[in-house]
Amino acid sequence: MAYGLSRRELRPKVRLLPGEGGRYHLTSVEGLAALSLDALSSVAYGPEAIVVVLIAAGTGALTAALPITLAITVLLAVLVVSYSQVIAVHPDGGGAYAVAKKDLGGWSSLLAAASLVVDYVLTVAVSLAAGAASLGSAFPSLRGHLVEVCLALLAVLTLVNLRGIAESARVMMLPTVLFIATILGIIVLGLVRSHPAAVVGTAQTVPVTAALGLLLILKAFAAGCSALTGVEAIANGVPAFREPRVKRAQRTELMLGALLGLMLVGLAVLIRRDHVAPRGGVTVLAQLAAGAYGDGWVYSATNVLVALILALAANTSFGGLPVLMSLLARDHRLPHLFGLRKERPVYRWGVLALALLSAVLLIAVDADTQRLIPLFAIGVFIGFTISQVGLVRHWRTERPPGWLRRALINGIGAVMTAAAALVFLVSKFLDGAWVVVLAVPLLMWLFARVERYYTAVGLELGLGRIPEPPERRTSLVIVPLGEVSRLARHALTAAIALGDEVVAVAVHADPDTARALRAKWDEWNPGVRLDIIDSPQRSLVQPVVKYVQRAAEGGRQIAVLIPEVEPRHRRYQILQNQRGILLATVLRARTDVVVCILPYRLSL
Amino acid sequence: MAYGLSRRELRPKVRLLPGEGGRYHLTSVEGLAALSLDALSSVAYGPEAIVVVLIAAGTGALTAALPITLAITVLLAVLVVSYSQVIAVHPDGGGAYAVAKKDLGGWSSLLAAASLVVDYVLTVAVSLAAGAASLGSAFPSLRGHLVEVCLALLAVLTLVNLRGIAESARVMMLPTVLFIATILGIIVLGLVRSHPAAVVGTAQTVPVTAALGLLLILKAFAAGCSALTGVEAIANGVPAFREPRVKRAQRTELMLGALLGLMLVGLAVLIRRDHVAPRGGVTVLAQLAAGAYGDGWVYSATNVLVALILALAANTSFGGLPVLMSLLARDHRLPHLFGLRKERPVYRWGVLALALLSAVLLIAVDADTQRLIPLFAIGVFIGFTISQVGLVRHWRTERPPGWLRRALINGIGAVMTAAAALVFLVSKFLDGAWVVVLAVPLLMWLFARVERYYTAVGLELGLGRIPEPPERRTSLVIVPLGEVSRLARHALTAAIALGDEVVAVAVHADPDTARALRAKWDEWNPGVRLDIIDSPQRSLVQPVVKYVQRAAEGGRQIAVLIPEVEPRHRRYQILQNQRGILLATVLRARTDVVVCILPYRLSL
Repeated sequence: MAYGLSRRELRPKVRLLPGEGGRYHLTSVEGLAALSLDALSSVAYGPEAIVVVLIAAGTGALTAALPITLAITVLLAVLVVSYSQVIAVHPDGGGAYAVAKKDLGGWSSLLAAASLVVDYVLTVAVSLAAGAASLGSAFPSLRGHLVEVCLALLAVLTLVNLRGIAESARVMMLPTVLFIATILGIIVLGLVRSHPAAVVGTAQTVPVTAALGLLLILKAFAAGCSALTGVEAIANGVPAFREPRVKRAQRTELMLGALLGLMLVGLAVLIRRDHVAPRGGVTVLAQLAAGAYGDGWVYSATNVLVALILALAANTSFGGLPVLMSLLARDHRLPHLFGLRKERPVYRWGVLALALLSAVLLIAVDADTQRLIPLFAIGVFIGFTISQVGLVRHWRTERPPGWLRRALINGIGAVMTAAAALVFLVSKFLDGAWVVVLAVPLLMWLFARVERYYTAVGLELGLGRIPEPPERRTSLVIVPLGEVSRLARHALTAAIALGDEVVAVAVHADPDTARALRAKWDEWNPGVRLDIIDSPQRSLVQPVVKYVQRAAEGGRQIAVLIPEVEPRHRRYQILQNQRGILLATVLRARTDVVVCILPYRLSL
Repeated sequence: MAYGLSRRELRPKVRLLPGEGGRYHLTSVEGLAALSLDALSSVAYGPEAIVVVLIAAGTGALTAALPITLAITVLLAVLVVSYSQVIAVHPDGGGAYAVAKKDLGGWSSLLAAASLVVDYVLTVAVSLAAGAASLGSAFPSLRGHLVEVCLALLAVLTLVNLRGIAESARVMMLPTVLFIATILGIIVLGLVRSHPAAVVGTAQTVPVTAALGLLLILKAFAAGCSALTGVEAIANGVPAFREPRVKRAQRTELMLGALLGLMLVGLAVLIRRDHVAPRGGVTVLAQLAAGAYGDGWVYSATNVLVALILALAANTSFGGLPVLMSLLARDHRLPHLFGLRKERPVYRWGVLALALLSAVLLIAVDADTQRLIPLFAIGVFIGFTISQVGLVRHWRTERPPGWLRRALINGIGAVMTAAAALVFLVSKFLDGAWVVVLAVPLLMWLFARVERYYTAVGLELGLGRIPEPPERRTSLVIVPLGEVSRLARHALTAAIALGDEVVAVAVHADPDTARALRAKWDEWNPGVRLDIIDSPQRSLVQPVVKYVQRAAEGGRQIAVLIPEVEPRHRRYQILQNQRGILLATVLRARTDVVVCILPYRLSL
């Protein structure tokens, strides 16, 4: 599954059940818990996005929410079928990047990669913004400080991920089941009770600014499509399922589709019946929860649970982005550095970069979910479209039995998702979608640029060709020293073992010190020549560099061996080694010699 | 002049006429230009400091400014005589730290060093604050933004010093002469004209909050002593004078004393006659300038000139602090790193640290000169006192002809300066002097702590003793490699020259890649064994470290040679080498082997 990847790609393989050495065994239900959080949590902001658009045409326009949701559910069905096919075609995990690379090639895989990177950042931002809104619904005192709440949640996520975490499907099971039960409970109780839902929040007078025309309905449709983000996750996690994994994964995808569709339609029915409109600081979902559960502790608990689920959804990005970056690095489209994602420093930089970008976004939009959704959805829907266009190409090339029907389903899906992406892009361009229009091509250019550089370097290094045999040379090891000491002995021992010839070199500003050192050296008589360089300017590095440059003219292999005192306690680090580091840095910049560092460990 | 040092110590040697290779030739007058700026610029805030204290007892109390100034002038005379003696005793530059180290020893030299460090920071802060006040006097629109003006000036100084500057006495001559002429002009014209001086600024009603008692007079005296800061600079710069340098330096010291005394008394006479009190946003000096020159362009130019002189005075710290720190480093009282002050990175860190500390101070006191003066003066007067106590000790030990008279002068000076320091300390303790009381002992502790550490390390390294001869060992050079390429050939060439035995080691996650590499290697057949380590977790560093640790068990000298691709353009740096750096870092932390870096330079 070298290139299986997408927003949640490889997450199960990498992070689930880490003790099991590559063999995983999610059942369909466990798969739902592990892989569907991101999609299911979208109900916290998707329905609200529809309402927010429609309200511009007055409360009466809210009746349109139900037919729009039904249309979205149709798209959901297309996507579910489509991704069931992706699961079958890419049983090793078929994210948009993998599909694009295999079936579409070049630029579309760059587009997929760029939109995926944007999505990872936006998953974090949208989920946290929606989570903060949920908390604000439960605790009115937080309402004026949603940005701060977001940043606090983000800080917790970042710290947890900097330490590193081990997820497991079993741990995720409980909150997922609770969440599903709570949402279904809202719908059932809401339908059973007869009184109107909105008992919390302050009623807002919404001026009617638009007629309920086709454009508004299109906009509401596109906005509501944000509820579909995340349905691709299962297709990426196929390898985590128990055999027969394709069947199990497909079953999970269907379960997810059914659940999500049910939730969306149910919530839309309630919205229509109760004319739920945005109320000061209380989310649409929270209003529906209050209608079902009243405004007591169950209401608060529901909102906290929703926030928790959203935070867990945000967390998936922290696992997913490093995987994407390492795949890009392996394809020479990002610095090779990121291929080392298992190395802690690299991983940490990734976590910090993701946290920083999300924080900037959250502050820029003042933690307003609705302003982030267009940006978010554009990226996700580009991914959807690429996956499906790739499949269409796949069916046309392979032509298995029934390929035309399959290609048709994917083709319709592609057109619908492309249309949604386009609606977002056009209608929200000035409202912030331009950021995506700027960021995606920029990232694509960056990936292409990096790839071009590595190709050129590969040519220069003669990668893949057999080089000439290595030369045979004699060697001279130069050891910069200040005093006669155990450190000098340690360094000369190593230098004598490595060099055919060894010379020690000291820099002194003061003739007296130089004479004293010479006397000590002769007394010690270590069998190595000592050159003392005069430096009245008290400069250390420059004279040594010149000395080395002169020595390097002879054609021998030159190595400079710098002994470094390593204190046991980290706080003493500043007191040692700085001269060595400085010398090593300048030597590496100005000469082609081998620079060797030899540690000498102190007891203090 | 190994330890000759003080606030401006060695400045001439290090920074004046840098092309002349250690031989300088300031005449007495040139010496005045080069070394007296800091002292002369004190007239911009010294007289004002007196007025600010006295005004608490009403405008009538301002008449006391003259007798107080006369007393300060007496102290100035004592200091001038005193420093003439310092010049004779320490012709190699006799700063407080040098005197204390030679004549007083241990703790008092730590005290001198700590108070000097504090002074360097405060010289910058006070001079810039006074400079900003001067600019504010000329340009009323700046008055509400003095902190910003200070920070802007500081930024300019910092940038200039980061680039590095070459001062010269000749360049300093013009502004110094202009400044002296301007101040003397203020006095002469002010005395000639009969109308009162204060024609600029808004009159302030100052409530009478104190009686003109002894305490207030003492406070005003102490505050006015801030005008004496900087008179020690010439004594530190003796080596920069032309022979006979002691005579010339003494003559310059006398000229400085006479000029400074004349200015202080002249300004005090004007203050007394015109009852000059602080007026909204206009400095006392600016009011006197307006009295002499009117409020036209000459007035503005005067204030700009004063600000320029103050900025140049602030600049002396940027030259002086690195010198002090390098002397402390040579005495093992600061990290040896600072001994390398000629090396650009070290020098830059010093400049940045000084700028940062000054900025913090300026922001903390809101760029109010008067609040900085007590802190400043305490440090300077500790230095004065130490120098003079040291000289008293010197006379008592050496007993040259007339030693009793000399000791008496220095003794009186010491008592007076100690008294002034004490008055500052007590009367301004809660107003901010506690910062000095905290910072100075903290710095002393730090210096002592560093010294103790280096002593312990010296013992452990056996410094000064003859170690055993170096051992003879065989060597194994390990070369981590990824592919067969020119880079591999380059690395093996160096490794074969250095090691008795060489082995290449590759890490691979994938059996296919491993097999391909093995085949390529056998085809190449470079005469070096290749070990391929299996790492299904795609970790690179850990497997190599383990391999090296196992190899190191044999008692041979182990070196790991890491070839690094060096791009020609800095912007490609992120694309290369990160794996090598990571590996080198971990190897240095976890093993005792020699870590060698070999650059391979790309053409792009």
